[in-house]
Amino acid sequence: MLNSFYTKVLVVIFIYFTCFLCNTDGADSDIQLDAKAQSNHRLDSLNLLSYTLLLILTLLTIWFFKHRRVSFLHETGLAVIYGLIVGAIIRYSGSSSHVLNMQVFVNDPQYNSTLPPDTLSLYFPTNGHPKSNKTFQYVFREEIVDLRENEIDFKATFDPEIFFNIILPPIIFHAGYSLKRKYFFRNLGAILTYAIIGTTVSSFVVGALMYGCVQLMPARLASAFTFLDTLYFGALISSTDPLTILAIFNDLNVDVNLYALVFGESVLNDAVAIVLSGSIQNYGKRYQSGSGGFETKAFFKAVGDFFGIFMLSLLIGATMGCVTALMTKFTRVRDFPLLESALFVLMSYSTFLIAEASELTGVVAVLFCGICQAHYTYNNLSEDSRIRTKQMFELLNFLAENFIFSYIGVSMFTFPKHHFDLLFIFTGFTCAAIGRAANIYPLSFLLNLGRKPKIPANFQHMLFFAGLRGAMSFALAIRNTLSEQRQAMLTTTSLIVIITVIIQGGATMNLLNWFQIPVGIDDETEALSRQSVHSGSTTSRGEWNELSPTDRPKPQNEKAFLARIWGSFDTCYMKPLLTHSRPTLLETLPVCCNPLARLLTTTEQMTQECANRQGGDSDSELCIEENDFSNVENRSNNANSHINSISGHQV
Amino acid sequence: MLNSFYTKVLVVIFIYFTCFLCNTDGADSDIQLDAKAQSNHRLDSLNLLSYTLLLILTLLTIWFFKHRRVSFLHETGLAVIYGLIVGAIIRYSGSSSHVLNMQVFVNDPQYNSTLPPDTLSLYFPTNGHPKSNKTFQYVFREEIVDLRENEIDFKATFDPEIFFNIILPPIIFHAGYSLKRKYFFRNLGAILTYAIIGTTVSSFVVGALMYGCVQLMPARLASAFTFLDTLYFGALISSTDPLTILAIFNDLNVDVNLYALVFGESVLNDAVAIVLSGSIQNYGKRYQSGSGGFETKAFFKAVGDFFGIFMLSLLIGATMGCVTALMTKFTRVRDFPLLESALFVLMSYSTFLIAEASELTGVVAVLFCGICQAHYTYNNLSEDSRIRTKQMFELLNFLAENFIFSYIGVSMFTFPKHHFDLLFIFTGFTCAAIGRAANIYPLSFLLNLGRKPKIPANFQHMLFFAGLRGAMSFALAIRNTLSEQRQAMLTTTSLIVIITVIIQGGATMNLLNWFQIPVGIDDETEALSRQSVHSGSTTSRGEWNELSPTDRPKPQNEKAFLARIWGSFDTCYMKPLLTHSRPTLLETLPVCCNPLARLLTTTEQMTQECANRQGGDSDSELCIEENDFSNVENRSNNANSHINSISGHQV
Repeated sequence: MLNSFYTKVLVVIFIYFTCFLCNTDGADSDIQLDAKAQSNHRLDSLNLLSYTLLLILTLLTIWFFKHRRVSFLHETGLAVIYGLIVGAIIRYSGSSSHVLNMQVFVNDPQYNSTLPPDTLSLYFPTNGHPKSNKTFQYVFREEIVDLRENEIDFKATFDPEIFFNIILPPIIFHAGYSLKRKYFFRNLGAILTYAIIGTTVSSFVVGALMYGCVQLMPARLASAFTFLDTLYFGALISSTDPLTILAIFNDLNVDVNLYALVFGESVLNDAVAIVLSGSIQNYGKRYQSGSGGFETKAFFKAVGDFFGIFMLSLLIGATMGCVTALMTKFTRVRDFPLLESALFVLMSYSTFLIAEASELTGVVAVLFCGICQAHYTYNNLSEDSRIRTKQMFELLNFLAENFIFSYIGVSMFTFPKHHFDLLFIFTGFTCAAIGRAANIYPLSFLLNLGRKPKIPANFQHMLFFAGLRGAMSFALAIRNTLSEQRQAMLTTTSLIVIITVIIQGGATMNLLNWFQIPVGIDDETEALSRQSVHSGSTTSRGEWNELSPTDRPKPQNEKAFLARIWGSFDTCYMKPLLTHSRPTLLETLPVCCNPLARLLTTTEQMTQECANRQGGDSDSELCIEENDFSNVENRSNNANSHINSISGHQV
Repeated sequence: MLNSFYTKVLVVIFIYFTCFLCNTDGADSDIQLDAKAQSNHRLDSLNLLSYTLLLILTLLTIWFFKHRRVSFLHETGLAVIYGLIVGAIIRYSGSSSHVLNMQVFVNDPQYNSTLPPDTLSLYFPTNGHPKSNKTFQYVFREEIVDLRENEIDFKATFDPEIFFNIILPPIIFHAGYSLKRKYFFRNLGAILTYAIIGTTVSSFVVGALMYGCVQLMPARLASAFTFLDTLYFGALISSTDPLTILAIFNDLNVDVNLYALVFGESVLNDAVAIVLSGSIQNYGKRYQSGSGGFETKAFFKAVGDFFGIFMLSLLIGATMGCVTALMTKFTRVRDFPLLESALFVLMSYSTFLIAEASELTGVVAVLFCGICQAHYTYNNLSEDSRIRTKQMFELLNFLAENFIFSYIGVSMFTFPKHHFDLLFIFTGFTCAAIGRAANIYPLSFLLNLGRKPKIPANFQHMLFFAGLRGAMSFALAIRNTLSEQRQAMLTTTSLIVIITVIIQGGATMNLLNWFQIPVGIDDETEALSRQSVHSGSTTSRGEWNELSPTDRPKPQNEKAFLARIWGSFDTCYMKPLLTHSRPTLLETLPVCCNPLARLLTTTEQMTQECANRQGGDSDSELCIEENDFSNVENRSNNANSHINSISGHQV
């Protein structure tokens, strides 16, 4: 409240000043036009300023809460609440800026495309002066359905595509870059099951249930929603964002495997949900253009879409990550940390752009790029670049996350395309919960059949309750709000996000007690890595793998099968190729490949083994068994021991 | 060349893949529209991607040059050259995307404003299906003069306002934040003289000369340019950007005072140039709307504009900087470094927005905000936030700078609104050089009358040659390209930027030899502070004041009068109020203000004096004389000596 008041006081003060300074008294339309452009620019700035002040306010309140050890509200919850308050003020203070709109018709005889033009040039006569007639250019914005709706100030909102192109990429990249890889890979099988199979199951369950419920509702709703609509809703509501819960897990040192399951699943199901919803939309388009019945061809194309886009995006992300690793390994760009950091950022950003330019999913590519950057490139970076990239993405992630949550709050009131339908909202809540349950419980049962350390029931309950909805669901819902059905979905999604973030987020502490989940695990490794997190950051996802060299792997039976295969491949071939770590390719590749191996092994790799192991992350070493290639270790141990004594001090 | 080739190969590969996956065979216009939107998005991504790849290429080449110790070309020069090459390829490869344009007329009887509408809603009939008629919304973009020009792909360029709202703010903020304040304040008088008086003189000299020359030219030019046009050109060409030269100064340890003069002047003259050009434009508008003769009222308003906008922007920037300092001093937000860094970034960004929202100059506000943040807030920050904010803005600055210089290169070929006029270009070059000379030499003469360490002739020559033009000139020139005169100015400015950056930048080494300017100054202080720069960064402006406590001030005669007054005020009142430094306000304020002083003095300030002096920056202590307030020091010395022995280890 203070925030908006503050904004207004500022505006009044400054308008006074600027009126004093730039008092335009001419009546020419040129000057009016210029004044109009200036006032538009001022409104844009004010709009951004109000969000910035909102974030500052949120930030100060979070600090106050942390300072006073109030923990029932996480920063995202706070951002949403402040957003709602400011949104309500903007909405009911009635200060909407009037937008001048003109209706025009197609009457250009030369124009014969069936598509709307990209630009319109408006020939604008100014009465009296024939010479001063002007032409203005207009660019395509969107299709509109209801002219009236558009009158509400469209300044207070952002183009939904901004989320996919500006806000989500750093969040998702950070999630990948800060993934706690040791425990992630150890639980790889379960995480992939929940994320890929679980999210798909959840989408179809929610979609089917919603469709069923809607059919029982008044005819108005029943006829409006198609199965595809509800399935789309199912996909977007199946992505989870347990920021709040992870932050609390972090503070309380909850069991690391539970942490890995919740975090890993939430990271990957974002990727699955975005690709799935894209495929559903593509199917919908083919379906519309087809005969109207169930289109087998279109269905299989949609399935192909899903796997194709997912795998290709993954491939692009992983490839770009590996290319960056190679660049930083084989050039001495690390001598110039600023150049190195810039290269890192540009390569990561170009991953997103390459994926988008090739009509794949940039967000998915960026996620896997982040994982590869953390797993390989990070080890090659100079100390300066490590700190810089970590800290920069941590900060970007923090700002982007808080921005999107305050926007969710504000847009509840200011976004013109909301459609409140209590029945639909209530059904949405119920189905989302059932869908989450349909993801977790059956799959946990199946996983427990084959898993050595079983996932206990209380972990399953916690996984179920960790299904907060967040940024991705909202971004997907606001992307398309053309029809009334889509608007109802947006409203429901926004409410689900707000309620789950505030209520489920706030109840985490009690739930942990309720489910008797052990906290404060006194794992020495954990304590070490947690400590570095705590001193360096307060973000919920800010995990950095500065593991100590004393940190030894757990007994074999804790490893998943998938993790072991991947781990040994990674240590034998990927890490030696992409980083300076030992064993080198000379030791792992067959003898016939020696010339190639020599080419791909740097002198640092030959000499700096010890320093690297201590400084870098030792994740993959932890991820596979020591005895998996003890022969390799033995082969090189003798050589190392005296090399280390010479070059141990080089970093 | 490789870059564009690479882009094209990628596009071909991915279009193949995506055609395979998303083969749309429906003929409905909905699908076409969607495909159109997708293809637009792909083009946007490709456009950004080509700039990103261009930056990566520049970066790798810079690394190679640095690695091989090639120093005749600075990174900005390289970015320009690569930009030119890629621009030429884009232009002549003829792959312009065709933009569908439609001409529409005002025929809405309800529309009766003399202003063009903000939005157009186009009623678009789709033949045959009356129900499928659609309405599309278009938003105002700009006024256009020549319809044909607009056909050239407008995708390859950016909205000029992007420079003022996205690219310049981090560059300018970084300049302020990394200002080498010790030497800046020591040469404050000379820097302000060159920057404020010099830039104004230079603008009017260039303006008048250009106007005179243009009058002698063929009638076509003579009648087109008004004095205001040429004066605007004078203002925009008077801002300098000696990135290349400063980078070399840094590498060679050139005399610190020369460094401070060149850097300080270039930072401030950007601010002066942008405000001056704004005032000239405002005057022009009033002039047009008035009687046509010399408008005394409008002239004085323009002068008022200039000082009013400059001072108010300065005030907003300084105020926001001080508010941030107070926030970080009186809250314990430093316990949570991520929150602290976010607060720092948000406060700095809101400074820009507040200034823009109040129709002042955001860039100027951000500059002074940066100076205050470095001078006060930086001392209150936690170690983590210091590193994070430093490194982040350094990286942003690097990326923004290289982007703008490659854009200058690319836009020489792709920007549709260039107007080549050899005569005008030649005159522009000559007048810009004369204007620079009219800034430096007369003012140096005047300054030397009153200055203790005079500015020697070889320093003056170097200052003259340090007048490279850069980002600010280009951004101001591209802002308004409606008339042919403005287009000729843009072309001339772009060429001046390109030529000065490449030629003058490349010749710096030889010039230093030629003017016999001493390099490799073995100043212990300098060496220390340089070392920290070198290890931390390679940017030309990346100066950080990590001075050692052994660093003592120079004899009194080296200080400027202005610097001494400011310095003692700063140390007695500003620093104690805004930071944790000693002496506290309890010691400097009169006894009657003791209750207030106690309120504004933190316990850290009372106890942690020693730690702070060592850890923070000791600039202002260096900036004023020790004996200026030796009484204060003596008063507190006894107390300190044993407080320090107790709390010396606290940080």
